[in-house]
This record gives sequence, C-alpha cells and structure tokens, in this order.
Amino acid sequence: MRATQVPYFTEKEDPKDAIVTSHRLLTRAGFIRKQAAGLYVFLPFAQRVLRKIEAIIREEMDAAGGVEVQMPVITPAELWEQSGRYSIMGPEMMRMRDRHDAPFVLGPTHEESVTWLAQTVLKSYKQLPLTFYQIGTKYRDEIRPRYGLIRCREFVMKDAYSFHMDRNSLNEVYEKMRIAYRNIFSRCGLDTIPVEADSGNMGGSGSEEFMVASEIGEETLLLCSDSACGYRSNQEKTPFVPSIAYGSGEDGEAERVITPNVRTVEEVAAFLKTDVRNFIKTVILENEEEIVVAFLPGDREASVVKIKNAAKSGDLDMASPEAIEAITGAAPGFAGPHLLRTPPPQENPQKIKFQQAKAIAASEGIRYAEKKLFFLYDVNLKNRSGLVSGGNQTDTHFVHLKEGRDFVMLPENTADLVAASEGDLCPKCGKPLHATKGIEVGHIFKLGKKYSEAMKVEVLGEDGRPHVPEMGTYGIGVGRTMATAVEQNYDSHGIIWPVAITPFEYVLISLAKKGDEIAKVDDLYEQMKAAGKDVYYDDRNERPGVKFMDAELAGFPWIVIAGKSYFENGILEFKERRTGEKSEISKDALLTR
Amino acid sequence: MRATQVPYFTEKEDPKDAIVTSHRLLTRAGFIRKQAAGLYVFLPFAQRVLRKIEAIIREEMDAAGGVEVQMPVITPAELWEQSGRYSIMGPEMMRMRDRHDAPFVLGPTHEESVTWLAQTVLKSYKQLPLTFYQIGTKYRDEIRPRYGLIRCREFVMKDAYSFHMDRNSLNEVYEKMRIAYRNIFSRCGLDTIPVEADSGNMGGSGSEEFMVASEIGEETLLLCSDSACGYRSNQEKTPFVPSIAYGSGEDGEAERVITPNVRTVEEVAAFLKTDVRNFIKTVILENEEEIVVAFLPGDREASVVKIKNAAKSGDLDMASPEAIEAITGAAPGFAGPHLLRTPPPQENPQKIKFQQAKAIAASEGIRYAEKKLFFLYDVNLKNRSGLVSGGNQTDTHFVHLKEGRDFVMLPENTADLVAASEGDLCPKCGKPLHATKGIEVGHIFKLGKKYSEAMKVEVLGEDGRPHVPEMGTYGIGVGRTMATAVEQNYDSHGIIWPVAITPFEYVLISLAKKGDEIAKVDDLYEQMKAAGKDVYYDDRNERPGVKFMDAELAGFPWIVIAGKSYFENGILEFKERRTGEKSEISKDALLTR
Repeated sequence: MRATQVPYFTEKEDPKDAIVTSHRLLTRAGFIRKQAAGLYVFLPFAQRVLRKIEAIIREEMDAAGGVEVQMPVITPAELWEQSGRYSIMGPEMMRMRDRHDAPFVLGPTHEESVTWLAQTVLKSYKQLPLTFYQIGTKYRDEIRPRYGLIRCREFVMKDAYSFHMDRNSLNEVYEKMRIAYRNIFSRCGLDTIPVEADSGNMGGSGSEEFMVASEIGEETLLLCSDSACGYRSNQEKTPFVPSIAYGSGEDGEAERVITPNVRTVEEVAAFLKTDVRNFIKTVILENEEEIVVAFLPGDREASVVKIKNAAKSGDLDMASPEAIEAITGAAPGFAGPHLLRTPPPQENPQKIKFQQAKAIAASEGIRYAEKKLFFLYDVNLKNRSGLVSGGNQTDTHFVHLKEGRDFVMLPENTADLVAASEGDLCPKCGKPLHATKGIEVGHIFKLGKKYSEAMKVEVLGEDGRPHVPEMGTYGIGVGRTMATAVEQNYDSHGIIWPVAITPFEYVLISLAKKGDEIAKVDDLYEQMKAAGKDVYYDDRNERPGVKFMDAELAGFPWIVIAGKSYFENGILEFKERRTGEKSEISKDALLTR
Repeated sequence: MRATQVPYFTEKEDPKDAIVTSHRLLTRAGFIRKQAAGLYVFLPFAQRVLRKIEAIIREEMDAAGGVEVQMPVITPAELWEQSGRYSIMGPEMMRMRDRHDAPFVLGPTHEESVTWLAQTVLKSYKQLPLTFYQIGTKYRDEIRPRYGLIRCREFVMKDAYSFHMDRNSLNEVYEKMRIAYRNIFSRCGLDTIPVEADSGNMGGSGSEEFMVASEIGEETLLLCSDSACGYRSNQEKTPFVPSIAYGSGEDGEAERVITPNVRTVEEVAAFLKTDVRNFIKTVILENEEEIVVAFLPGDREASVVKIKNAAKSGDLDMASPEAIEAITGAAPGFAGPHLLRTPPPQENPQKIKFQQAKAIAASEGIRYAEKKLFFLYDVNLKNRSGLVSGGNQTDTHFVHLKEGRDFVMLPENTADLVAASEGDLCPKCGKPLHATKGIEVGHIFKLGKKYSEAMKVEVLGEDGRPHVPEMGTYGIGVGRTMATAVEQNYDSHGIIWPVAITPFEYVLISLAKKGDEIAKVDDLYEQMKAAGKDVYYDDRNERPGVKFMDAELAGFPWIVIAGKSYFENGILEFKERRTGEKSEISKDALLTR
C-alpha cells in the first residue's frame, strides 16, 4: 500500500495519559486513538497487526482441533442467572436492557453462552470432544481503564471452550491447548512466562496463565531462581515454603495483657517485645453469605485466594467492623483464636468440621447471625506454643498461647493461607523464589462440570445414558498481545515489530524528486508487490528526514531506501530496524530475499 | 475438515418461528441457532460463509481505495448528541450506561464515530480522499425481530465512510463504490437490483440501494416495464407520473355542504357523487418540533418520505387528534385547504414562505401552539377547479374549490408528495412501472457535510484555509447477504451455495466399511487437500442416506462419493448439487478439476 492511499496517522506529542510504552508508541505511530476512557479506534496499521495475530491464532486453534463459531456479544441475563454469575459478577460486568426492559449482559466472557450452545447442539458422544472458539469483542467496565490496550473496556479476545465425555479427554485437549498457546505467543514474537495459576476448587494442574513480565502487571509471579528447576507460578497459587522454619516463643499459661493504643501486629509485637513471627495474625473476610476467620503467622500477608479456596467460598472482601465485633466481641484489631465470642467449631465437640454456625451475636439481631462462619488456620501455626494474639476484648492481647491447648487445629481447617513472596523457597526444588510482575495475555483452565451441571447439559454416552460433559476454557487477549509485543520490542526511535505481526514487513522510502525517478520507484514498488513482498510504499511528497522518522516510529522490520544510488546505479539502501544495521542491496537481491 | 472433527449440526425439525426459507434452511442445515429474539449463534459452516463474504468485501473495498479500521462498538452518547441523533433515534437504538452512569450507544451505524475520528486524525488535504471501512457488529433493537438473519438485533455489517475536499472527489469515490458494490454482490452470487433511493435533502443521484427481490421485503421497488430503459427506484424516491392526467370537476363558487357520518375520501366522494380524483386529501403529520399539513389528490396515498424531504423535516408521525383540531378547528377527517383555522401562509401576504407560524390554538394554551407549521401541496392539484375537500368544520365539506382562488399554491410549497405505485409511468421513459418487494443488502449514500459540519471537522486545504470535508457512507449487511443468497439459491433438498461463498466447495462422502476402504478414502481426502480443494470429508460412521441428505441440505456445490466403484475401479461418483447431474470421475480428473 501507498502512504498517499493509507496515510501515516502519526502524532507529534505523547498522549497525556500514557504511562506505558505501548500506549505511548501505538498512539504516536498512528496505530490507535482513544475515543473515550478504555475505548480505542484501531487505525489501518493496527488493523493489519490484529489480522496477522488473528490468522496465527486461527491456524493454531484449527490445528488443535478447534472449530470457529461466533456467539452474540450481548447475551440474555437469563443465561447468567442459570450459572449464578449474574449476581456474583460486580460492576465490571456491563449490563443493558432492551426496549422491552429485558436485561442483557455485554459478554466479558462466554462460558454461559457456549454452555447454552452445547445444550442446544450437543446430542451424542460422537460429537465429542469438541472445541468451539471465536474471536470477537468483549467488555469489562474497568473502574480505571488505563495503559492503552492493556486495560480497556472494549477489547478483542479469542475465547475457546472445549467439551468432553470424561476427564481424560479434557486433559488431552488441555495439553493440546498448552502447546497451541506456546506456539501462538512464540509465533507472535512474544516472550511469555507460562505459570501455574489458581484454579479455584479444581485442584491439580488445572490452570495455566501466559504472562508477560512487566512493571505495570497486575499479577505477581514467583519464579524459581534455579532455571534448571523451571518452577513458575502465580503468587496466588504458589505454596508458601518459609525460608526459615517457624519455632515457638516463651512458654506459659495463656494470659490476657492490657495493650492500650497498639493495634497492628508490629505495634503489639514491639509493645510486648515479641518477635512478629510468634504472633498470630487474624484476618476476617466476608461476602453476602459467609464470614471466614483466618489465622496465620504474624509476619506474613494472607492470600485471599488461598483463603477463598480453602473455605470453598465465592469472592471475599474485608469484613465490616460490625461483623468483627459480632464474632470477637472486640473492636477490630483485637481478634485471636483463644476465647472467641463465637468459638471455632473444634472447641465444641459437636462441630468438628466446617459447617454452618450461627454467631452468638444472633441474640443481638444483627445480620451476621445468619451468615455461615468458617475458621481456618495456616499450617505454620501447627504445634507451636508461646504465641501472641488479640484478646477478643478491646485493648487486650493474649500471650503464651499454645496450639492444641488454647486453640485446636484440625486437618479440616488447616491449610496454606500465606501469600508466598520473593525469597520464600521453591516448592519444587527448595531454592529461593524470585518475584516479578506480569500481565496476563492468555489463560487456559480446566472448568470441570461447573457450567455444564448448572445449565443442565447432557450428552448421550456410548453406554446409552446421559452424561454431563467436562469443560475447558481457553482465552487470549488479542489486543493485549499486540500491546505487549510493543512493550517487549521498541527503542528510542519507536516500535520494532516482530516480523510475524508487523503491519508491513518492508517500508520502501522513495527519495525521488523528478518524474523519471518517481516512475522508477513506482516500478520497484510494483515489482516488490509482484514478488509477494508485504510492503508499505512511502511515496509522499515529504522531506527524507520525516520519512525516516515515521518509518522507525511505526516499526517496520526492514527499511528500503530508493535514493540517488538507486537512480544512478540501481543500488538500494537497506536497513534492519532492530539492529540499525545498514547495507546495500540490488533490486534483484531484494526481490528474491 | 472432517465431519468427525467439525460435526454437522443439522436439525430434523423446522424452527417454529421460521417464516422464510433462509431462516428455515440455515437452522435445519446447522448454520445458525437462535439464542434469543434477534440474536444468533453462527456455527462453523456459517462462520466459513461469513469469512468468505468478508474476504470478497475486503478485496473490493481495498481495490476501491478503502482502508480498514475498527471503531469501538459502544460509542459515547456525547458524539450522538453532537450530531443531534441521540434524541432523534428512537427505541431501535440500543443504549446503556457504564458504571459511572455515563450514557453509551451500541452503534447501529458509525457516522458519528468516524466523524470524530476524522476530526482527530485528518489534518491536511494531502490525506484526502480517504475511505475508512470496518467489518463488525451492529445493533438495532427491532420491535419484532424476525426472518432469521434478515431482521435481527445484533448483526455483522461492513460500513465505510469517505472524506473529500470537494464534491467532485465525493462523486468519484461514490462511483468507485457503486462499481465495488456491484462486484461484491455479483461475486457472492447474489442477484441484486440497484435502485435509486431517497437521499433526504441531498438531491440528485445521491443514494443507491442494492435490493434483493423478496416477498418479505420491507421496501417497495418500482422497475420500468421496459428493460431497455432500466429505470429502477425505491418507491420512496420514485417521482409520481400519473398514467391519466388529472382534470377538473364541476365549476362554481366554493360552497360548504353538510356531510354527516362520512369521513374517508371514498365515503365522501360516494356521498357527493364526485370522482375521488377530484378530492383533495389532507394528511397531517407531526414530530416534536413541527406540524406538516399536506394536500394531495384524493385517489392517492401520500409518501411520508417525500413530505418529510419537501418540508426539510426530521421523522414524522401521524398527527394527534389534538393537533388536527388545533389547526383545522374540526375533528379529524374534515381538513382541507380552504378556510382553515390556521390559514396557509400564502393567504397572509407577510408569510409567503415556509416559516414558523403559530397555530391560532395558541390562545387555548395547547402545546401545538409552539410547533412550526408547514403547508405543502402536491403538484397535481395545480390549476385545478371543481375540487372537494374537508370543510374544516366537523361533518362538513367544501365543493367547487378552485386553486388560485380558494387556496393558493406557490412554488415554495408545491412538490411531488404522492407515493408512486404499480401502473404509474416511468419518470425516465413514460412506460408503465412494475412494483416488487425488496430487501436491502447494501446502501451507498452521499452524506455531504451534514456530520462534518455538525461535528466541526476542518481540514487544511491547498489554499491554506480550513475546509469542511464532504462525506459519503456505504453499508453492506454481511449476515443479510448470506441469508439472501440462500433465499435465492435452494431447492426442496436444501441450500445450494454459490461457489464463491460456500462453506466448502466439495463434500467427500465416504461409503467405506472396512479398514482398507477407510484408508483409501482418508488418502483421497489428503490428496484433495494437497491439491488445494476446499473439501469437507464426511467420514462419519453413518448410513449413506443420512450422509447424502445432510450434504444436500448443507448445500455444498459438488458432491464426491467414494463407494464400491472407487474401491474396485478407482471411479468416484460426482454430483453437481445445483443441477442434480451425476457423472463418474477418476481420482486424477477430480484432483486436477
């Protein structure tokens, strides 16, 4: 294409809200324009990149046995009610109503829709395994859209969903997808870190995220410092292995001490002259249905995801002061496992497992009385004594607590609740972990029967009986892939596109001034096209400097300059964008390159 | 692809709500599934058809100089307020609000969005002419979605918008688009009727619709009965040329007669023993801002589009009884041009042009008093006498009305207001017109400066001064193209795809039973693929009858059957779907076909 036909839409100034490189360079180089917060126009260059990424995705998905479909972007709320997500999904889910006031969702993802489809079209085991995929627009009403294409409100995704008669078949297709995803990102020139990810209550190796290391990443990744080990995991999922084992503190009878004006673990530890590692930190979380009380070592942060999974709960927020008061009888900051107003079940022989317990506060008529109450202990509190915790009475703490005496940990309510972090040990090889931030560009996930059961999908098996299929779900952020490719490939002059996804592989810069020179470069352009070259022809009437700058900003991998030496001797200048290496090349060599 | 990998999703029963062939066959043959009213899933076969249509569109749009972009599907309401369409567009426009309660539109079209884009990226005349196009999802909240893909709520469209320094450039690109559109539809195997269409206040040949003849069409087309003439027009746009000229009735002084219990033109004409052709029909229309009173021959229907254009109004509905009463002083059904309560401006020398007139009813305090009031006369009432109209007093009519005496037609308020119909004369050659119903699959339109002015786009001209660009808009219903292709190509067995847009060109039906037979057909399939054949391999373990039926229902153009004669003598059966013609073919002949 010619620049006089498909113009550069370069900008001289960085966008004011650009914090990250991809946002800045994609705007400056004329790939994208922000229409409103989190809503971007893709200009012709970006459109070409997107289409190349999509083509790679299609090839790999087809090779992995996927079949392409297109599901409506807006989905009836009814489907989301069937799965239970209509109420669970928060304000990030965009909603609307049609002229008849019927509610719809602007799909952030299509599990409900595809499960409905499966229910409609799947009849026999002969059709399975089957993987539907689509490439299309998704919505997420980010409270603070930013970073350009990395966190926007309307974005292009490839989503895929597989259906299986049994777990083995799911495992097989999941493995195919793992390979397809590796191929896709590597073909796009993207350096991704596949990490084990939280799979909720699925357990096992049921989830893998493809992350791009980045300071602006929302996720923390923990990588084994020994590359031979290769362990890589999302922090949410990483088992906590302390680098120094926890011991016990000073022994003695449990004793209440007055601790006025000190609340945080650090303040209390300092006041009581105790090591924070001997402290029991209490974290109280809640949602509409449940309250979860978690105890963990005082020197560490809780992993909300681990707590949620251990309690088999939905999303959890920090509990309100009222809830804390109802459970502990004290102001926030003074909770602990000993002598709770609502004792943990193990101190009440009839209640030895997680179960629905009514808070004592029921008699006071507050709403928490009706919520389920769970108690959880971090495994690193087991068998320890000389511990300190809140006193369940404002401005007091207990000292000399002993597990098994003052609080009792049972297998059913003991779990790993600590967020692992830099310097903890690799759960695979025991070497230290290294932390880095990452952006998720892909995610594969074994769903099991969560949706197929909720939405009552049944497929006739070879045994003549109805079976509920197993499901997998597999997503790629297409726009994000484009943006992170820029995050990984640029220099002070602009973008440096990986060849496979560049808008054009070559830019032909004409320095022609006179009619016969113009004709010569026009002719070269036609010959390059005829030779199958993917070329952008800068035939503008602009100064050479402008043309060089625009070409480098836009990031075409190979720059071909037809100047004086071409008009005189047929020799072109050739520059490789990535290395900056310049050479001379004849027309024939270029055409057969 | 193999049927064991990409299954048929055929259905045994017609969908209950299917009225039209394409809806019925596309569902039965497993191309689409309805998820909710007007929302369809495109299954793999449909996806392949869509992608082939899109590829054709892209090729032709690129060849016509278009550049592909992608604009957000949801657009800020602010843009629609700038163009004035946010309030004009009715409940067919889907709207939503984000988490901050900011209003958005689910784009039914993108004039506002692309004009915003132009404002953002266009700077110099050097960039023009420029045609942006995109292929994507559009929304229209049809009150009664039906006919499958023909009238749905979420649909795929190609929309394009061109920008120009002057009218000549717009005309040139418009002509390129006319050709591109003819190419696109003919390449898709679709027989379209390009018709002149209403272009609102643009005048001239500023709009062309590409129609597919169909009984379920929403539009009426008028075609010259002389194919050599070739005049074809949307009824809305067709000038009315009566086959019998209008004359005058009985002469005399205007006289009021009592006409109890008769209201319609036909009833009054019968009662007064007058020809309905001598009757003046009064049509009163209104919108939020205006009331338009139109007078036309009693034997014809008004064209609301013509009235709207003549009055330069927005959309108009039938006026309320209150508005009619305010203007005429009579109940509905007794309006006429003579002695109106609110006299037409020409009877009041200060008001000889369309202008803001206050209804007399202002004194009664009703809201119509504040609306603009326009009077319009159909050109076929000019110079006539002996006419009959309502008496502007309930249960009365006037007889012996004479134009120029009892009502005065001026050039400024005289226009063609009649809806032309079957049997009227061709405005080009004078031969009778033939009427047919049509579905619109494409529309090209010269927009002028409507949006670029409203949204303040300015481009620096060669003269160094800012210019407001001319615009054109060009749309194709992609899903509709697919559906109408089926409407035009089917038989009692199912769909017959035009080769260019078929999901697969060949279906290879295997009748293999034993291992070595299966291996032979597998091998043939691989060879067909290697030879570049677009082939669907029915390798299912199903009865031959089921395979033949599914192949014909799905509509693949060429059916290849590998049966006994192939296993024994290497001879395949070959069937052309459209003709039903069967022949024998060797493997080599097939591969080089």
